[in-house]
Amino acid sequence: MESKDQGSNLDVDRFMPGLSVDCVILGYQKGQLHVLLLRWKTTHEWALPGGFIDKAEHIDEAAQRILMERTQVSALYLQQFQTFGALDRRDTAKMTEVLNKKLAMDEKVSHWLLQRFVSIAYLSLIEMNTSAPQPDHLSDRCEWVPLSELPDLLFDHRQMVDAALEFLKERISYLPIGRSLLPARFTMKELQYLHEAILQRSLDRANFQKRILKLGLLQKHEKQMTGAAHKAPYLYSFRDNTHS
Amino acid sequence: MESKDQGSNLDVDRFMPGLSVDCVILGYQKGQLHVLLLRWKTTHEWALPGGFIDKAEHIDEAAQRILMERTQVSALYLQQFQTFGALDRRDTAKMTEVLNKKLAMDEKVSHWLLQRFVSIAYLSLIEMNTSAPQPDHLSDRCEWVPLSELPDLLFDHRQMVDAALEFLKERISYLPIGRSLLPARFTMKELQYLHEAILQRSLDRANFQKRILKLGLLQKHEKQMTGAAHKAPYLYSFRDNTHS
Repeated sequence: MESKDQGSNLDVDRFMPGLSVDCVILGYQKGQLHVLLLRWKTTHEWALPGGFIDKAEHIDEAAQRILMERTQVSALYLQQFQTFGALDRRDTAKMTEVLNKKLAMDEKVSHWLLQRFVSIAYLSLIEMNTSAPQPDHLSDRCEWVPLSELPDLLFDHRQMVDAALEFLKERISYLPIGRSLLPARFTMKELQYLHEAILQRSLDRANFQKRILKLGLLQKHEKQMTGAAHKAPYLYSFRDNTHS
Repeated sequence: MESKDQGSNLDVDRFMPGLSVDCVILGYQKGQLHVLLLRWKTTHEWALPGGFIDKAEHIDEAAQRILMERTQVSALYLQQFQTFGALDRRDTAKMTEVLNKKLAMDEKVSHWLLQRFVSIAYLSLIEMNTSAPQPDHLSDRCEWVPLSELPDLLFDHRQMVDAALEFLKERISYLPIGRSLLPARFTMKELQYLHEAILQRSLDRANFQKRILKLGLLQKHEKQMTGAAHKAPYLYSFRDNTHS
């Protein structure tokens, strides 16, 4: 929940009370979706990157700042997808133990952190190899973890990941989602693999190609010049005027 | 922004600070979408129904309560669609004038109301003629207004209405949205008119029928027995196992 400059000396008066931002940051590599996770120093549990909203900051700016602090990347795709406001979404007993006992945190800060929080969740898609993951003050690791190897997550963070994936599934068939996850030019097969990773099912090659070309999102380029020329696949890019 | 029991004696300590809920409540009548609006007593400006979140209340429960207070109806369809958090989303100068001068509100309450608010917006679809609109403490009218006659709205409420309509447009082609807006049984023509009202364009009759039947959301019933039997249209309902 904390960013680099929001550690035990957290200036809580700067932030909107009871409101946080959590980010589901997804990348794609070797045919697999990955999510950026932090590991808490104290309990070794994994959580999504998150933080608070400065009183003088738009909620979208807070999300952009948190993303930048954790990845050193300014994402093209950053989208609010759901606000989480269940009463019991954070484990207060555990939080109390960590903040008061393990971290011996300042009483005012600890009290502030233990209030009820509603969290605005954002989805970001970024190219993994342009990112430089940075742990925050409360964590010792910040890593890309393949979705297939997702560990247990703190609070309602697993629900956030699942909701983000649903959000993406609903949009992948008609928006240029791949723009942020694939290199600038890609083969039809690479695009199909990405769609399969998001939809978590295999797709028919011919149908996929027909449907995706019909959308008019793609521009066709030269053949990929590796191997035999007659078998070389065409390269594609997303058209500049399409937005996700 | 206030509900019936949240007037000038508002017990602000009950609520989460800086966080509100606003509801875009839509109904459908005579081929037109309508939105439920309140008119402020003091300035005669129109606004969406809204309220605050009790510290011991799930955000969805707060939305359900606000909806019930304004319409006396418990909606089947109530869906969070976006959280609004721009810095300047409420006109603080105007709020100050209304609260302090026109309403001579208690200083603590006025101070609380003038803080920055982030608002979680919900969309609800209800059958207009089952509702009994009730103004809240700050308003003198609560009415269904056709979308085509939408007046200027307070704050960012127009943006909320527009975003709610976009949300609905994206879903109307594959979810049984009509369930909450049409009578239990309806003709294909009535369903098409609803889709046209939401999409704000006319649809081809044959294509519409083909596409909607293919989705498998509808159950066919007997013919509507008015006029000549050979011209009578079939009645349809949404299948029980489909959800919007």
